[in-house]
Amino acid sequence: MKLEKFVKKSISNVPLYVSGKTIEEIASIYGIEVDNIIRLASNENPLGPSPAALEAAEEALKVSHLYPDPEAKDLCSALKEYMNINSEIVVGNGSDDVLEQIVKIFVEYGNSALIAVPTFSYYSILVKMYGGIPYNIPLKKGKNSFSFDVNSILNSVESKTKLIFICSPNNPTGNSISESELEEILETEKVVVLDEAYKEFSESSMAELTETYSNLVVTGTFSKAFGLAGLRAGYCACNTALKELILKVKQPFNVSFVAQNAALAALKDVEHLERSVKLARNGREYIIKRARGLGLKAYDSQGNFVLIKVEGKPEIVEDLFRKGIIVRGCGSFPGLSEEYFRVSVGLEDENKMFVDSLREIV
Amino acid sequence: MKLEKFVKKSISNVPLYVSGKTIEEIASIYGIEVDNIIRLASNENPLGPSPAALEAAEEALKVSHLYPDPEAKDLCSALKEYMNINSEIVVGNGSDDVLEQIVKIFVEYGNSALIAVPTFSYYSILVKMYGGIPYNIPLKKGKNSFSFDVNSILNSVESKTKLIFICSPNNPTGNSISESELEEILETEKVVVLDEAYKEFSESSMAELTETYSNLVVTGTFSKAFGLAGLRAGYCACNTALKELILKVKQPFNVSFVAQNAALAALKDVEHLERSVKLARNGREYIIKRARGLGLKAYDSQGNFVLIKVEGKPEIVEDLFRKGIIVRGCGSFPGLSEEYFRVSVGLEDENKMFVDSLREIV
Repeated sequence: MKLEKFVKKSISNVPLYVSGKTIEEIASIYGIEVDNIIRLASNENPLGPSPAALEAAEEALKVSHLYPDPEAKDLCSALKEYMNINSEIVVGNGSDDVLEQIVKIFVEYGNSALIAVPTFSYYSILVKMYGGIPYNIPLKKGKNSFSFDVNSILNSVESKTKLIFICSPNNPTGNSISESELEEILETEKVVVLDEAYKEFSESSMAELTETYSNLVVTGTFSKAFGLAGLRAGYCACNTALKELILKVKQPFNVSFVAQNAALAALKDVEHLERSVKLARNGREYIIKRARGLGLKAYDSQGNFVLIKVEGKPEIVEDLFRKGIIVRGCGSFPGLSEEYFRVSVGLEDENKMFVDSLREIV
Repeated sequence: MKLEKFVKKSISNVPLYVSGKTIEEIASIYGIEVDNIIRLASNENPLGPSPAALEAAEEALKVSHLYPDPEAKDLCSALKEYMNINSEIVVGNGSDDVLEQIVKIFVEYGNSALIAVPTFSYYSILVKMYGGIPYNIPLKKGKNSFSFDVNSILNSVESKTKLIFICSPNNPTGNSISESELEEILETEKVVVLDEAYKEFSESSMAELTETYSNLVVTGTFSKAFGLAGLRAGYCACNTALKELILKVKQPFNVSFVAQNAALAALKDVEHLERSVKLARNGREYIIKRARGLGLKAYDSQGNFVLIKVEGKPEIVEDLFRKGIIVRGCGSFPGLSEEYFRVSVGLEDENKMFVDSLREIV
């Protein structure tokens, strides 16, 4: 029998999420020793997790045979304190999980969502998966930076619009939204999903606005500045009604106790966080300056990554692979092309190796 | 603004999943010391996880800052070997996650699913969440055991039926399906979800039939016999077409590397598995015999739990709570009532405490 004939229409149209190339892939394609490859492709924390988080994770392993707390109450309380807000917090298996619950609650056939692009491709995948149509609203491109086109977003809102996605700082362009821009969008009364996965690397967070706007949900993650991508912990700040909806539709035991306990400890290790943020901020300025020095367009960034344009020379990305430096080609980002790549900020010597290789190639 | 007006119809009808009461809840309600409470409510492994699994988990923690392998290739290979099958394997954040992906792929408004009840309540919750209608097909109740009503299932199949859920051994009734019964159901050509979360405690698994029937998907978990409920790892065996669909709709990084690596090691610790299974088998026979000796109806079980009927005396469940013994009341299982409870097999002394308390109450 053909299973395919039973598959929902919305599912048949879903594209596969494309993640950065792995060290093993590059080693096998280009015949490079694994030890000679550095991976600057997934915006991970090159310092690794906080030692305190690892200790808490080990402690949690002792009760690995017991189901975790479905609501992760201790972690939620700590997150409220960390963000200094009175809104509700819900935790997910990475922020991907929280994003899926939000789409699941609001999007179905006949609906649409506005997505400021280029951005993280998973928003669009989720909207399609639940039967909705994603409409891409291009960012405005300036000389050295991108910015959100608020007027275009406002003009695109229609009755079937269910969600508006804004990533700030935006992956992969690095620009942030201002409070007044966000408030203009919130006034549409559509549900606005503000993904702040990279907020720790920027100057500010808008999570406090969830106290005022019931149509705002702000997501965050432990995968970036906190260096816990492998453990899977993300969260959102929102109002009580949305929290209760998410608790109903999420998998009951979605966040492992190891992730809950490690995240809790990571929040308290302020020193490790500050060191991680400082490394990313210094590294991005170094990369931007050197790339511009080589005559390339490198965009300002509030994240732990830099978007670089190699006009007319898309082969540079593969040349970097060949030298054992894995960056993220941007051909799969709507609004970008093979002429762009994103490089994650690494350790100081990794950033230097990247810049040196880029110089040799250019 | 009222967020609720934007919520999908299917979501408004979803009931909250009810899990077993926690030690903290019972301690606070009945004023009992936490140390004087034993919890036999969630079919966890009382021996805890395999030491080899814990060691592998600790090893995995060292790379907690890196995203895990989205396909969990090493774990999938090991699972094929463990089950001795050539079908495909897909891994999830617990089997709850795999179950959700299957429902997501097939169920939408206008569809329905057949569910052999009483059983694990999450199937019904998922079907409702995706807009489908769950039809409960009652098990047949014998003197000492339940059995699947295959004829009733076959007679209930209609064109809008998208999925048929069978849990075997069934939670909470303990009975298993035979190969010939399953094959009769598979001949309907509907997609059949066979949840084998408890298969290690029984005599057999039907996963091999996924090699023959493309409409069969068999789920399994590391939360029960392997004692890794807190880490979140489950899986399914299925054909290639379904595997590719699940990979498209699941969250890309759904299973932490800690869970992947611990599960891999757990599969290899045959001794711990055998000890866990033996404890459960001996314990369930002990509990059944003693409960019957007290004049109660205790059903035969192929799982690590026993279903007990306390005819006309539903207050017995609360009496057990009062004595610090947490069992799972079955009022929320369709087809059962407050007159039933499920007790998970614990350590030998816990089983004895349970039986002694039951004797005092009865």
